[in-house]
Amino acid sequence: MFSLAALSLRRSLATVVSGNKTSKLVRERLKLEVDKMKSEFSGFTPGLVVLQVGDRDDSNLYISTKLKAAAEIGIVASHVRLPNTATQAEILHSILSVNEDCSVHGLIVQLPLDSVHTIDTELITNAVSPLKDVDGLSCINAGKLSRGDLGDCFIPCTPNGCMELIRQTGVSVAGKHAVVIGRSKIVGAPMHDLLLWNHATVTTCHSKTQDLPAQVSRADILVVGMGRAEMVRGEWVKEGAVVIDCGINHIADESKASGKRVVGDVHYASANERAAFITPVPGGVGPMTVAMLMELLYGKN
Amino acid sequence: MFSLAALSLRRSLATVVSGNKTSKLVRERLKLEVDKMKSEFSGFTPGLVVLQVGDRDDSNLYISTKLKAAAEIGIVASHVRLPNTATQAEILHSILSVNEDCSVHGLIVQLPLDSVHTIDTELITNAVSPLKDVDGLSCINAGKLSRGDLGDCFIPCTPNGCMELIRQTGVSVAGKHAVVIGRSKIVGAPMHDLLLWNHATVTTCHSKTQDLPAQVSRADILVVGMGRAEMVRGEWVKEGAVVIDCGINHIADESKASGKRVVGDVHYASANERAAFITPVPGGVGPMTVAMLMELLYGKN
Repeated sequence: MFSLAALSLRRSLATVVSGNKTSKLVRERLKLEVDKMKSEFSGFTPGLVVLQVGDRDDSNLYISTKLKAAAEIGIVASHVRLPNTATQAEILHSILSVNEDCSVHGLIVQLPLDSVHTIDTELITNAVSPLKDVDGLSCINAGKLSRGDLGDCFIPCTPNGCMELIRQTGVSVAGKHAVVIGRSKIVGAPMHDLLLWNHATVTTCHSKTQDLPAQVSRADILVVGMGRAEMVRGEWVKEGAVVIDCGINHIADESKASGKRVVGDVHYASANERAAFITPVPGGVGPMTVAMLMELLYGKN
Repeated sequence: MFSLAALSLRRSLATVVSGNKTSKLVRERLKLEVDKMKSEFSGFTPGLVVLQVGDRDDSNLYISTKLKAAAEIGIVASHVRLPNTATQAEILHSILSVNEDCSVHGLIVQLPLDSVHTIDTELITNAVSPLKDVDGLSCINAGKLSRGDLGDCFIPCTPNGCMELIRQTGVSVAGKHAVVIGRSKIVGAPMHDLLLWNHATVTTCHSKTQDLPAQVSRADILVVGMGRAEMVRGEWVKEGAVVIDCGINHIADESKASGKRVVGDVHYASANERAAFITPVPGGVGPMTVAMLMELLYGKN
C-alpha cells in the first residue's frame, strides 16, 4: 500500500512557465515589427513618455526597465520627471502637453505619485488621453475592458502578460473555472475581465473572502495578486491547475548578502507539487509586464 | 424514518421579496424628496428625456412605465421619438441637443434601437453625457463601477434594484459567496461589480460555464439574468440562499386567455423550497428597475 507521501512523489513537478523566456520572444518579435514599420513608413518612430513625480527608488527602477526595453525594441522613450513639489495643476499641465504631442503614442504616469502635495491620482490617470493610455488605467479603458470590448481598449500590462503566459501553457481558458485573488485596478480587476471575456467562469476573491482555501481548491486557473508573501499554500491548489503568481514580496533571508529575497504570493515549493504549470518569482509575471507594454504601444500605432 | 419528501415538507417556504412593495416605498420617499426640493429651490424641476428610435411594442411599454413613474414622483419626463428611418448622424444630433439642454438631468436612450439603418449602438450610448447617463451604460460609468468608484457613477437600474432587494432581506453581502449568471452590460456585468464592491466573493457564470448546477449550489446570494425560462432548478439552489431573478420570459400557457404567461430564469416553485428569500416574477426585480432609475435621476441633481 502506498503512503500519501510516496504517492505524491510519484507525480512530476509542475512545468515552470518562464516569463523571462516568453518576454524575450515577445520583445524580439516586436523589434522585427518596429524595424519593418520604420522602413515602410520612413520617418515614423513610435514614441513613449514615462512621467514621474518625485524620486522613489522603486519607481526609478521600474522606469529604467521600461526605458531600456523600449530602446532595445526601437521605441523612442523619454522620461519626464517633475519634482516632488509639483502641484496637481502642474502635473495636469504636463499630461496635457504630452496628450497634444503627436510624436508621442503612449504616456505612462508612474504610480504612486511622490508629491508633498495632496494629489487626486484618479484625476491624474483620467487626464491621460484614452488614445495614449497604454497602462489602461483610465475609466474609459476600464469600462471597455470590463464590458468585453477587448479589441477597442488598452489592456493593463500585468494581466495582459498573465494571459500571454496562460496561452503559453496551451491550456484553453474557455469554460474553465478561474479564480483571481485580488481586485486592484492594475492587476485583479482587469485580470477578472480578461479571463471572463476569454470565456472562463471567474471567481474574484479578496481580503473579505471567508473561505479562501476552498475557493482556491476549485480553480483550474489561479491568478494571485494580493501582495502577501507566500499566502497561498500548495495544499490549497487543485491538482493540475495553472498557477500564475503576480506577487513581488521581500522577505528576510539571512543566507543572502542583502539579508532578504523576493518571493511571490504563492508558496512556490508546495504549489509546485500540485500545479501542472506554475510561474516562478522572480522571472515569471514581472518580465512579461514590460514586454506587454511595448506590444501595446507598438500594436496601437 | 423520514422520507426525503417528508423532510422537505418540514421546512417553510422562502420569504418572498416583493419588488412591488419595495419599489412603492422607494417611489413614495422620492416623491417627498422631490416636493421638498421644489419648495426649497423655487423653479427647479428634475427633467428626464427618453429617446426612442422606431416603434417597438416592448419599448413603447417600458417607456410608458418610466414616464408614468416619473410623473407620479414629480419629475418632468419627455419622450423624444425619432422615426425608424433616422440615421446615425440624426440620432447623435438629438443626443447632443439633450446633452446641452440644462433643463434635462437624465437621458435614456431606449434600446434596442429600431432603425432601418445600421447603427453603432456602442457609439450612441457613449454619446450620452456621462453626467446625464442615468442608465449607466457609457464606458466611463462602467469603468468607474467596475473599478469600485461606486460613489462617483450612475449604476444601471436593474442591478441597483437587485441590490436594494438584497438589502431588504437583511442578509449582509460582505464575505458572502455570490454567484451571478449572465454577463450582459445592463444586468450581469454591473451586478458582479456591485456585489464585489459590497465585498462579496463573486463568481460570474455564463453560456460557456460547464458546471452550472455545481456553481449555483455554492451561492449564498444568487442573481440570475440569463434570459432562459426556468433554467435554474430548485435542486441546484443552496439551502437558505437569497435568490434574485432578473428574467422575464414568456412561455405558453393554455390556461391563460393570452395563451402565455411570464416566468423568470429560475424555476420558482422548486427554488422556493430551498431558498430563504426569493423574488417572484412578475413583481420582483421588474418594478424595482424604474424606481431605481428615478432615484438616480433625483439623487444626482
